[in-house]
Amino acid sequence: MAVESQKGTQHDQESVSIRADDLAAMVEGRLVGNPNIILRTLAAINEGIPGSLTFIRSASFAKEWADSLCEAALVTEGFDIPGHDAENKALIYVQDADVAVIKILEAINPGIAKPNTGIHPNANVDSSASIDPSASIGPGCIVCKDAIINAGVVLVANVYIGQSAKIGSDTFLHPGVVIGDRCSIGERGLVFANCVIGSDGFGFLTATQDRPVLKVPQIGTVEIGDDVEIGACSTIDRAKFGVTKIGHRTKIDNQVHIAHNCIIGNDVLLCGRTTLGGSSTIGDRTMLGGAVILNDQATVGKDVKVAGGTIVLDTVNDGETVLGVPAMPVRIAMANIAAQRNLAKFCRRVDKSLKKLDDNYQTS
Amino acid sequence: MAVESQKGTQHDQESVSIRADDLAAMVEGRLVGNPNIILRTLAAINEGIPGSLTFIRSASFAKEWADSLCEAALVTEGFDIPGHDAENKALIYVQDADVAVIKILEAINPGIAKPNTGIHPNANVDSSASIDPSASIGPGCIVCKDAIINAGVVLVANVYIGQSAKIGSDTFLHPGVVIGDRCSIGERGLVFANCVIGSDGFGFLTATQDRPVLKVPQIGTVEIGDDVEIGACSTIDRAKFGVTKIGHRTKIDNQVHIAHNCIIGNDVLLCGRTTLGGSSTIGDRTMLGGAVILNDQATVGKDVKVAGGTIVLDTVNDGETVLGVPAMPVRIAMANIAAQRNLAKFCRRVDKSLKKLDDNYQTS
Amino acid sequence: MAVESQKGTQHDQESVSIRADDLAAMVEGRLVGNPNIILRTLAAINEGIPGSLTFIRSASFAKEWADSLCEAALVTEGFDIPGHDAENKALIYVQDADVAVIKILEAINPGIAKPNTGIHPNANVDSSASIDPSASIGPGCIVCKDAIINAGVVLVANVYIGQSAKIGSDTFLHPGVVIGDRCSIGERGLVFANCVIGSDGFGFLTATQDRPVLKVPQIGTVEIGDDVEIGACSTIDRAKFGVTKIGHRTKIDNQVHIAHNCIIGNDVLLCGRTTLGGSSTIGDRTMLGGAVILNDQATVGKDVKVAGGTIVLDTVNDGETVLGVPAMPVRIAMANIAAQRNLAKFCRRVDKSLKKLDDNYQTS
Repeated sequence: MAVESQKGTQHDQESVSIRADDLAAMVEGRLVGNPNIILRTLAAINEGIPGSLTFIRSASFAKEWADSLCEAALVTEGFDIPGHDAENKALIYVQDADVAVIKILEAINPGIAKPNTGIHPNANVDSSASIDPSASIGPGCIVCKDAIINAGVVLVANVYIGQSAKIGSDTFLHPGVVIGDRCSIGERGLVFANCVIGSDGFGFLTATQDRPVLKVPQIGTVEIGDDVEIGACSTIDRAKFGVTKIGHRTKIDNQVHIAHNCIIGNDVLLCGRTTLGGSSTIGDRTMLGGAVILNDQATVGKDVKVAGGTIVLDTVNDGETVLGVPAMPVRIAMANIAAQRNLAKFCRRVDKSLKKLDDNYQTS
Repeated sequence: MAVESQKGTQHDQESVSIRADDLAAMVEGRLVGNPNIILRTLAAINEGIPGSLTFIRSASFAKEWADSLCEAALVTEGFDIPGHDAENKALIYVQDADVAVIKILEAINPGIAKPNTGIHPNANVDSSASIDPSASIGPGCIVCKDAIINAGVVLVANVYIGQSAKIGSDTFLHPGVVIGDRCSIGERGLVFANCVIGSDGFGFLTATQDRPVLKVPQIGTVEIGDDVEIGACSTIDRAKFGVTKIGHRTKIDNQVHIAHNCIIGNDVLLCGRTTLGGSSTIGDRTMLGGAVILNDQATVGKDVKVAGGTIVLDTVNDGETVLGVPAMPVRIAMANIAAQRNLAKFCRRVDKSLKKLDDNYQTS
Repeated sequence: MAVESQKGTQHDQESVSIRADDLAAMVEGRLVGNPNIILRTLAAINEGIPGSLTFIRSASFAKEWADSLCEAALVTEGFDIPGHDAENKALIYVQDADVAVIKILEAINPGIAKPNTGIHPNANVDSSASIDPSASIGPGCIVCKDAIINAGVVLVANVYIGQSAKIGSDTFLHPGVVIGDRCSIGERGLVFANCVIGSDGFGFLTATQDRPVLKVPQIGTVEIGDDVEIGACSTIDRAKFGVTKIGHRTKIDNQVHIAHNCIIGNDVLLCGRTTLGGSSTIGDRTMLGGAVILNDQATVGKDVKVAGGTIVLDTVNDGETVLGVPAMPVRIAMANIAAQRNLAKFCRRVDKSLKKLDDNYQTS
């Protein structure tokens, strides 16, 4: 099945097609409808074209099915789908439609051509570095003294690995990534282009009348767990001393800034352009929306949700959902935001009422 | 005419000088005043020095002319300029002073030395890539399998062009730019250093009790139109499937983050550090100020203006001007912001009035 | 003395140990307590382990000393330290504990191995460039026509130095840094990876009915003073004409964006992800917190403090401390923020009171 752009790309991938019943088998789903439909693309339910597959994972999507031009849908078991035309369309029931879509995307992913193993002649690798023979060190890469590059690692091109840094097995570093001295990444990591790990923390003593500003040496490192993904142009500073730590399976979007000595748990999600101040901590399974700011030393617990644009000054407890500037429990924040949207009007109305009451009192 | 720094640079460009009448001819303007004045630099109207040229495009600038030390000014036709000393100074009337300044800046631009055409011996170009002979592939550049580099393209240095990516004619990529597999840029594009186009979208299914977080494969591409400019360290993610699309003549500042599946129209301006959430859309000719945030799926219409620092949660209609957190029509937002600035004071005043009225009532 | 991670790093540095009396001599301090204690690591006062050194620079730290597991502390003279066990622990009094810690961090800093001087065979240096023989030009670096690289400069790897750019003595540029044509950095500078200096300012005339958007040529430069530090993935645009200027000893964190024609004074601190609009100015010794936004043309005076997340629209006077959106004097801002946090509740209460008063009046 091809993933064609609905917007008219000139770079269509090679066309692939699959029958509805073969697709059902691929995702171990239960087919209701026409097994012979040929599917060639994915589409949103309201943007269907002939030959397109969609997914239904909510009651509102279920109601749109009868009118959708998509010819097949992956359905999370349990939804009632009114008006299904079983003669001309196909529903494929699965335990979780989102998970099934992942299986399909993985199957049709054109992916990245695995580069050749070994060290490209235009790479510069120090003779003391340890490079597994199954690793791929692309053109323009630099690997410094005593660095360790484990099995299956890919450094695509122009990647810099500092002295005594360590890259775990099967980790993939896109072009322009920079890993500072003594920093480490775990296994199966994925780091996007121009990301910088191990720059100095921003630590200075401010100037006094007697002396200029003084730099506090930043002699710590960064330690990143297994199965971590880090976005393009994100930056993670090394610790003042000790480590800046990122837990296992944590996923970090583009242009995120993580300051020195932050401690981030496992299974955390940090969306685009979020900023973590120095020594802030985040518990396991917590999610931060886009452009969130954590103050220096802020403490965010486990299983927390922080809405985009929020500023966290101090502490968010386990399991809370917070929003706002500064962060508040979401219900209070929503009520306050609603009140703020009408604030000028409210102020005028109150002033008028007070004046009237005052006048009435004076004259009564 | 030289562009000398008013702040004492040690790197002055070679001195150029031009007579006021020659300048008027260059911009096809109407000269009123002394044609023999020699101009050697540009300056703001209130920072003039002898030999400096300024521009007048507003009534307030027009009033400053009599006292300005600038010796000449480009004037947008239609302004009344009081106190012009036509013996010692020159006014050059043009249809649009801003456009005339552009002509002058272009004429005196030291520019960038056009690099040699051809492939630098320290570049790495796959034998299957198509490279126009008039293109310039600088040192440290990598061009992957089946990539297409059209006529007049410049890859300055250390640029990475992924597999099957396509760069349109006369597009200029500064050092460290990374273009992902299968992504495309149109003609006459300009991309600044360390910009990343085609990193993966940030798509995950959050963890459940039964399974860890799952990555949603991001198998789409990025398509960028003609005459697009993109700033340093900006990042544009590829689509989950389909395309992330940037229209013609759209200009994007530094450190802008554009998530997967965004659709941005023609002639759009995105100022520094703006963040677009996944699948958000922006109509033609819309302008976003600095550090704006669009929520996932936000829809911003055509001819919209969004003030810096605004957060757009859902929809902005064609032609609106919005401001605030969250975005509101600008007049309401300004009134609310004014009310917020006095909020503590207002609350104290209201509490006092209510107490007084209540006391009065009790005792009356 | 080793700096071991308290979090279990596998990359411990070589163990170093030092006696308390030797440490006191190193920082020229006055020892009170056991001179024979062997110190092997640094720790926060409440995270002490045997062999750890901490620091006391506040009354609250002083009170924690009796219960701390740290065995020694650097103390800023003048604090009373209750419950000091002089037999088993050591206090080392110094003029400023923070400065003493810097001395120690410097002494134990594993640092960066000074690279070989000279030009790496995989660098590309134009024959017209001037390279001091004591400079180090690493692999993948490009140095263009007429560039000047002074004594002791280090370009680690994949650094790009544009035409006629100038790098002052002993300045250190991390991998992937890009310096644009004609831009200059002073002496003893430190620029972290993938930072871009000298990209074009974002200057356009918006489209009219008669013509498309027009680019305003950006023909100025960037001038950076001595002893300046700039973080990873930060971007500094060249001026439209004239210069974008950064003063001496100014320190800039990661992902900061400085637009064209900004003028920043000496000894300024700009924290992570701060954005400066075009032609904004900042006076000497001013500090901006993280993610601050300065509007185009904003003017921030000397000795100012701007709290994180603040938006400055126009002017902040010398010596002020400001906070909020938009910036307000900190006391007013704090009062307004407190009122905002209770706004919905306040509105409900006022409405209820007004209604009650109104009812009372009607019925009285």
